[in-house]
Amino acid sequence: MSASDLTSYMDSVGLAARQASALMAAAPTAAKNKALLALARRLREAGPALAQANAKDLAAASDLDEPMRDRLKLKPEVIETVAQGCEQIAAMPDPVGEITSLKRRPSGISVGQMRVPLGVFGMIYESRPNVTIEAASLAIKSGNACILRGGSEAIHSNLALANLVAAALKEAGLPEAAVQLINTTDRAAVGLLIAAPQHVDVIIPRGGKGLIERITAEAKVPVIKHLDGNCHCYVDAEVEFGLALTVVMNAKTQKYSPCNATESLLVHAESASDFLPHIGALLSEKGVEMRGCPRTLALLGPIPGAKIKAATEADWSEEYLAPVLSIKVVDSLTEAIAHINRYGSHHTDAILTTHHANAMRFLREVDSASVMVNASTRFADGFEYGLGAEIGISTDKLHARGPVGLEGLTSLKWVVLGQGEIRV
Amino acid sequence: MSASDLTSYMDSVGLAARQASALMAAAPTAAKNKALLALARRLREAGPALAQANAKDLAAASDLDEPMRDRLKLKPEVIETVAQGCEQIAAMPDPVGEITSLKRRPSGISVGQMRVPLGVFGMIYESRPNVTIEAASLAIKSGNACILRGGSEAIHSNLALANLVAAALKEAGLPEAAVQLINTTDRAAVGLLIAAPQHVDVIIPRGGKGLIERITAEAKVPVIKHLDGNCHCYVDAEVEFGLALTVVMNAKTQKYSPCNATESLLVHAESASDFLPHIGALLSEKGVEMRGCPRTLALLGPIPGAKIKAATEADWSEEYLAPVLSIKVVDSLTEAIAHINRYGSHHTDAILTTHHANAMRFLREVDSASVMVNASTRFADGFEYGLGAEIGISTDKLHARGPVGLEGLTSLKWVVLGQGEIRV
Repeated sequence: MSASDLTSYMDSVGLAARQASALMAAAPTAAKNKALLALARRLREAGPALAQANAKDLAAASDLDEPMRDRLKLKPEVIETVAQGCEQIAAMPDPVGEITSLKRRPSGISVGQMRVPLGVFGMIYESRPNVTIEAASLAIKSGNACILRGGSEAIHSNLALANLVAAALKEAGLPEAAVQLINTTDRAAVGLLIAAPQHVDVIIPRGGKGLIERITAEAKVPVIKHLDGNCHCYVDAEVEFGLALTVVMNAKTQKYSPCNATESLLVHAESASDFLPHIGALLSEKGVEMRGCPRTLALLGPIPGAKIKAATEADWSEEYLAPVLSIKVVDSLTEAIAHINRYGSHHTDAILTTHHANAMRFLREVDSASVMVNASTRFADGFEYGLGAEIGISTDKLHARGPVGLEGLTSLKWVVLGQGEIRV
Repeated sequence: MSASDLTSYMDSVGLAARQASALMAAAPTAAKNKALLALARRLREAGPALAQANAKDLAAASDLDEPMRDRLKLKPEVIETVAQGCEQIAAMPDPVGEITSLKRRPSGISVGQMRVPLGVFGMIYESRPNVTIEAASLAIKSGNACILRGGSEAIHSNLALANLVAAALKEAGLPEAAVQLINTTDRAAVGLLIAAPQHVDVIIPRGGKGLIERITAEAKVPVIKHLDGNCHCYVDAEVEFGLALTVVMNAKTQKYSPCNATESLLVHAESASDFLPHIGALLSEKGVEMRGCPRTLALLGPIPGAKIKAATEADWSEEYLAPVLSIKVVDSLTEAIAHINRYGSHHTDAILTTHHANAMRFLREVDSASVMVNASTRFADGFEYGLGAEIGISTDKLHARGPVGLEGLTSLKWVVLGQGEIRV
């Protein structure tokens, strides 16, 4: 596509999205749910057609590494999971139109807040076709229109999925343009999308840190960012050892690649001499490399076969997404909180403690999107939090923080009900 | 100040604000209230000193026009109003630390959201010294630190007020750097402030549209924008005439300069022939110029002494802030909503109607920060909404929309309370 063709294509997509968003904002809950259930049915029926489209993408992506090919693959269980996701979202209450805390004021007016869709969101993501359906289903239920730009390696799979979405919307009497997939792999399309406030109200990028930083720097539209997850577990002075061992091992080793996996372990000096040799042995069994501060190295002692080395300053800020854990001994809760707020990424951090006041202080003073007491950082997730689904995990403070579900795709406007009141 | 001196000055202000914000976030409610009450007392005691500082500003500002001089003037009643504002904010519940909707999940964890301060906000405003105290008092109660940059014409008044704030903070055992006023009138300071995400979490500009657009374009920090208020009153087909006349007159003429004053009147064709001559006579008595569509002009007829002219396309988008009103006859509620969403500024719009379904549809479909039924648009205000005070009125959709009070200066983080739960 030439540059001017691309511009006019993106303008037509944007205008159609804006028109569809007005209809979606006023759409009855029943119609939105009908579209979601139709989409679930169509996903299950379309197995062979989806497999064919996906095979084209996989054939073209022979040079991708295995984890990326795996994410690109539309396995039957992936399709079943997203179909179930659509059904779950259909079963959730409609966030749109809810009026909260309507209160009578001395002037006589009643003032409350009504939840309404944001309008149009743009979603930019890597080559995971399941995200196409997750984004579409959240858009439909939240009454928004969306413009989707998936990774170019997944273009055939995404187009096949987008056709199912359009058919489901049509079946429910909703505008097909409510969910549009950009049908070109031209990278310039992203640049146009993020610079078009007339078409898009918010951009949600998902992908590597580099991509998100670039989009944030260049966007002329608000961005709900998901930067890195350098998550901590802090083992306090008063702690149930068994519980702490179980939770820390789960937080680090249940999966290494998610952003909510723990990357750094802080241990209070009073617990360290007992706790570190135990956790060191368990981590070593799992093949997890440990990068410790000098006191950690001294207390861990020699563990046969363990990968242990000295942590550098850079380790405290690192999101490994791998079987590596940095470990530091601290002398107080105050030091632990200061370390987390300085080196962490404000994503998810947990304290393991039996001490009530310390737990409360950690909750208040750690400046992260999710703060936890005696639970694995791996719980920071839209499904686990009861949001039904998530479109991302925000590390921003404004608007949406942490897992972003239906509510994060809405806004609150003020409603005033009067009987002819005037301002005096 | 040289450019490098200014940079290091702004860095030192930013670092001090960041340090103070951690202390403010953890500050006891009693200490914050003590500081607010001390500030109220000190404001009342400082009358003569404030008058002296203000006189310097007024003397230097002899070339300002009268409305601007009036806003610059620290009259005793202005000081009393801001002192009472501090007391009202002290009396309000502390938003910080509130945990909402803590719910048990199937995994065993309990998940809720805790309200926490944003951190540091930067406020850029015109030469109205009372804003210094309003911003400071909201910052103190919401547990934020703030960096204030007032209009250069008010520098002496602002410095005198900032000294009172610092003394009140000190008296309450809180860090004086929680509220800092930039003590130079160098315009480059604004550019540094809005480009320093390491020092500032959000920028709140107050002032003309040009200033706000420039700040938004150049900021590297999120901005809570307050753009223009092109507010509408729509008189429906079924309507109580007396009520509609009273409310529309109040919305247009109670004050002309506020952003929530009505700038455009839409009248359903079925009401127009009766309503327009009545409102035309009342508007004419007040000296309000009417700019009408052709049908309006025909229905208004000749009103002796009235200023009536034909509206141009530009009039529908205009924020007059003056005794001017654009008037258009529409054929349906649908047309009224479409007109408001197209030409309005998404600030505040009201319907005058006796028809329930039309009222509800207007509330849902008009895409504005405040939507009203049978009430004057002039009610769109933090005090009138019960927020205690407002730091501005946001025309953004993300984060804060409409009047921004204490809650708009906070963020919700997720809290997870467990008993050793792990993710399976």
